[in-house]
Formats: sequence, structure tokens, C-alpha cells
Amino acid sequence: MTTPPVTSREWHLVRRPEGVPTPEDFALREVEVAGPGSGQILVRNLHMSVDPYMRGRMNDVKSYLPPFRIDRPMDGGAVGVVVAVGDAPEPGGLAVGDHVLHGLGWREYALVETGRAVRIDPRPVPLSAYLGVLGMPGLTAYAGLLRVAEFKAGETVFVSGAAGAVGGQVGQIARLKGAARVVGSAGSDEKVKLLLEEYGFDAAFNYRNGPVAGQLAQAAPGGIDVYFDNVGGDHLEAAISSFNPHGRAALCGMIAQYNATEPPPAPRNLALAIGKRLTLRGMLVGDHYDLQGQFAEEVGGWIAEGRLRYRETVVEGVENGVEAFLGILRGDNTGKMVVTLAA
Amino acid sequence: MTTPPVTSREWHLVRRPEGVPTPEDFALREVEVAGPGSGQILVRNLHMSVDPYMRGRMNDVKSYLPPFRIDRPMDGGAVGVVVAVGDAPEPGGLAVGDHVLHGLGWREYALVETGRAVRIDPRPVPLSAYLGVLGMPGLTAYAGLLRVAEFKAGETVFVSGAAGAVGGQVGQIARLKGAARVVGSAGSDEKVKLLLEEYGFDAAFNYRNGPVAGQLAQAAPGGIDVYFDNVGGDHLEAAISSFNPHGRAALCGMIAQYNATEPPPAPRNLALAIGKRLTLRGMLVGDHYDLQGQFAEEVGGWIAEGRLRYRETVVEGVENGVEAFLGILRGDNTGKMVVTLAA
Repeated sequence: MTTPPVTSREWHLVRRPEGVPTPEDFALREVEVAGPGSGQILVRNLHMSVDPYMRGRMNDVKSYLPPFRIDRPMDGGAVGVVVAVGDAPEPGGLAVGDHVLHGLGWREYALVETGRAVRIDPRPVPLSAYLGVLGMPGLTAYAGLLRVAEFKAGETVFVSGAAGAVGGQVGQIARLKGAARVVGSAGSDEKVKLLLEEYGFDAAFNYRNGPVAGQLAQAAPGGIDVYFDNVGGDHLEAAISSFNPHGRAALCGMIAQYNATEPPPAPRNLALAIGKRLTLRGMLVGDHYDLQGQFAEEVGGWIAEGRLRYRETVVEGVENGVEAFLGILRGDNTGKMVVTLAA
Repeated sequence: MTTPPVTSREWHLVRRPEGVPTPEDFALREVEVAGPGSGQILVRNLHMSVDPYMRGRMNDVKSYLPPFRIDRPMDGGAVGVVVAVGDAPEPGGLAVGDHVLHGLGWREYALVETGRAVRIDPRPVPLSAYLGVLGMPGLTAYAGLLRVAEFKAGETVFVSGAAGAVGGQVGQIARLKGAARVVGSAGSDEKVKLLLEEYGFDAAFNYRNGPVAGQLAQAAPGGIDVYFDNVGGDHLEAAISSFNPHGRAALCGMIAQYNATEPPPAPRNLALAIGKRLTLRGMLVGDHYDLQGQFAEEVGGWIAEGRLRYRETVVEGVENGVEAFLGILRGDNTGKMVVTLAA
């Protein structure tokens, strides 16, 4: 049985952004998606992810992920429902009606190789959680804090971008794992309130209210032991100044400079890393999928018990996908930014 | 029996240098040193060490070592001979005629607590080697390469300041431990020749001949896995660019900026540490004295077999101590800079 083609809208990158991306760098195009061939499934996407790292893929530079191609659909995490299965599916394999997590977002319908989709359970948490708290950002927080930064109970942790999908989870995992003190920075007073009142941070500050170094020193008068960096720039420099001896930083993102058209100033106090014996370590979540089982069990348990909170910022409609992405770079989101596709 | 006092010349810091130190920042003063009390020895220094890290101690800033005090003698590594022992020495303890390594250099005679002097054997190597290849710089190289940077056989190593006391040893230990390729930078063509012809480096370049990044990329076309940083600045930035994924840097010194009066530019490409999953780790040799036995045995063996070479730059006379120190900051030395005190 052959499935007829479907009409799908998908986002193409039509030119490479210079600095801050603009809507004109993208185009929403209508295409026909063929029915699935053997070993394929056709998925109707229900939620798609927009993430800061995607900014890097819009540049034509060699990196850990290939650049998006011009006039081709962008991609990224998505969850959806299987609407058709190609000929000769494997017994026990994916079936029509199954919910799946896969990597072909930025479009309404995706033709996915069965080996590149994972069946997910829609019952314990909303489907969109598989893009956030139980998905890639969640694992990033978990692996970055516990493995890359080697956090230990009794330490003081600072996380920047703390109201974001990754940062909010870093702070809460630190608290649940016995941190002496958890400090976060965010870009609005409302986000700071969220950190203090809902996420259980011990201290938090709005980085737009004054120099980061001074605010951090005040929020962590005993210094910090771990820094989880989502921002770079002045945040990293402040952390280096506040580090206690043998402090460790997980370098996860540097959103402060993703739109920079020339190299940004780096931490001018890096020489302090010698005397303090600091470790700065870059990370990509892709190295840590061996922790997926442990992560899902532990964090899933905390969510079920109500001990770990999360927020999502939901934008409706594929046609608003680019606007949602631009909003992330401005810090519009609280928690994971998700684009929910109209039914 | 009471030992009469001796007359000794010692170097005092008389004002804190601004930028590059000048001779006027120091004064050689003649003092009387009392005979040793109980639990003390009087040592006539034979060789004293001048090291780049001492520049930091001339500033009035909190660091891992206290600043030198104004109008007080400076201190640092020295080897000498015991000329008097205080009352009631321990059986088997230090005796007149013993050679010792201790921390009260920058002077002709030192009154040392017996617990702060270590007996050394003058037979296998020249005494001055205990200040260099078998001393603090040697252990720095050994621990920094093997423990801090986690060097493994088959990797490519880059070391800056490679003709210096630490750098020359880093490169040779890497070679002896099975590096795929050892690359060094130094500040003169003559030093580059030494690296290639005597120390067995696979490639070396004079950083004054052109931008470091380009010269490093040419010297290590397959990229580098380990960087041992004695220099900072453009060298660290070049290393970050040349790193292969999962590269590690031991941050040991940043001599390029020791005389800086304002914070120097830091590596503008630090964001590459994320995608490449780099680790930058500061070190102080003081954390690694547990490796002393293993280090002395392994490196002592290589020296005895002629497989590890070293150079010293010797300056004669305590009165030339400051000039020797200033020379280090200019890069005048090849290998360890030692001040030998006139008999």
C-alpha cells in the first residue's frame, strides 16, 4: 500500500545571517512530502524545538555539526505522531499512532528513517517535555553538572542563563544533590523571582541591573566551586574571579556572543586559573548519551514527585517558528522554548 | 657552642615594580646573620634560583604565595652547604658539610629551620640540577604533562617557552613517553636549533618570526592534543585553534603578561572549547609533590642514560642576581637560570 504524498510547510534558511538574524534570512515554504519508503515512517510533527545552538549552524563554518544548507529545510529536535509506515516494517517496530522523538523539526511532516526515531511514552509527562526537561537540554544539564564540572555535595554552584531550559535544571539538580548554595543569573526581575520562589535557588540576580562580577561576589560571598556557563563573556570572567581554588567550569554555551560579527573579548583574568588551579571544560551533550538511562530515571522521578519544576514557553504554529527562535536569542523565553504545531 | 654571626649580602625588594621591573626596584644589602639556634642550621648558599613566578610575588596582590615584603629579603629555591648546626641536633639529622635544598635564596647565608631543608646528594648530578631538571621546574614539567594535561602515548604535544627550564623538559618527557609529535616554540633561532638538534623535538619555531597561529598550524598539520602553556596570550589562542577534539591544556605560566599593567587580551576563540570539548586546567607544582619519588627516579634515570638533556644559564655572583632575574623575563636564558654564588 502506498501512502499518498502530503503537503507540508517547512522552514528554509535562505541566506546566512550577519550578526543578529532577521526574518528575511528564512522562508516558510510549502512542499510535497512523499509517502514513506521501506524502512521509513511519515511523522506529523506536534512540537518542534528551537535552541540557541542552532545559531551556530546558520554560519558557514566547520563545527561539530554541519551548517544548515541554503534553500534546504533546517532541522532540529521534534516530537510527533506516526501517520504512515513504509512497506515491510519490522515486527514490533514503529506503528501508526506511535509517538516519536526525532531530529527533523522545522517542518510539519517529516519522512524519517526508522532507526532515527525513538518511541516515547505520552502518558507520564506532556510530549513537549521530551524536547526539554527530559530531553536534550535536560541531559545537558545533568551531564554538564555532574560529569563535566564534577559537582560534589557541599559545593557552591553558579549557573548563568538560569531561567533557561538548561540553566533552570542545573540549579535544581545541584540543590537536589546537596549543594551548599545555588546562585543563578537571568535577564529579568521576573526570571529572578522564578529562580528564588519556584526553583529553590539560594540567590539570584538580574545581570542587566549591574556588572556581573559585583553581583556575583555579593550573591556568593564565600566564592563558587562550580560554574555552569551558558553565556560566556562577562559571566565567565566574573566566575573566574569568584572561583575558589580547584573550581571547575562546564562551558556549555556562550549565547552572549552567538551573534557577534567579530571575536568577543575573552576573560581578561584567565591567568587566575593558574594560581587557583581552575578547570575550564567544554562540553557537547552528544558525548554523554550513555547517561541517558540514569538521567531519565532520576530526573523523571523528581518531576513525578514535584521536586523538580520546569517551565515552557510555547509558541503556536509552524509559521511562528522563526520568531520563536529569534526570541530565544533575545532571552524572551522562560524555560524551554517549544513551537507547537497547529493540529 | 655558639656560632658567631656572619656577614651576608641579601636582596631586598625596595619598591613594587610597575610593569617591567628595573634594578632600582631592588637593593643588595649587607646584614649580620646570627648563629643557628636550636632546631636551626646555618647554610652558605652555593646556587640560588631565579624563576618567572617571582614576578608575581613582587605585586601586592593576594595570590597562592604571599607577596614579597618591602625592605625585607626576597626568597626562593637555593642549594647550599651546612656551615653550623644549632644546639641539640637530632641524631641522624643535618650535619656540618651536608648539602641541602631549601627555600631561602636571594642571599649568601641563610638561617633555616631544619624541617625546611632537605639533604641532597652532590654526586650523581651537579648541585644546581636540584634547582632545575631534578627540582621544582622538572617536577612541574613532569606533573603538568602527565597528570594535569593527561598526556597519552601517540598524542601530539605543543609546548611554549620550550627552551626554558620547564618547557625543554616537557618536550623531552613527551618524546620519551611516546608522543606522536612534539612541537615547541621559543624566542630565538638559536633556541629553535637546540630544540631540534639536542632535545629531539619534531618541529619548532621562533615565535618572533611571525604570528604564532600560522607557525603552529604549519608545525602541527594534524592538530595538537596537548598544550603545555608557559606563555599565555597569542600562544594560548593559537593552541585553542590547533586543538583536536578533547584536547587538554596545562596552564602553568603566562610569562607574556607578567609585566602587564593592565589585563592582557585573552584568547578570543575560547568558544571553540565547547565544540572541541577542550579542557584548560591551571596548575601549581605544590599540589604534586606526591609524584616527587616517581619523578626523581624516572627523570634521574633518563639523565644518567643521557636520554634527557638539559641546559643551564649560569650567572656568577649574588650581586648579579637581579640582573639574572630580569634576564629571565626577557628570555635571555636557555634552560634553567641559576645564580652561582662566589665561594
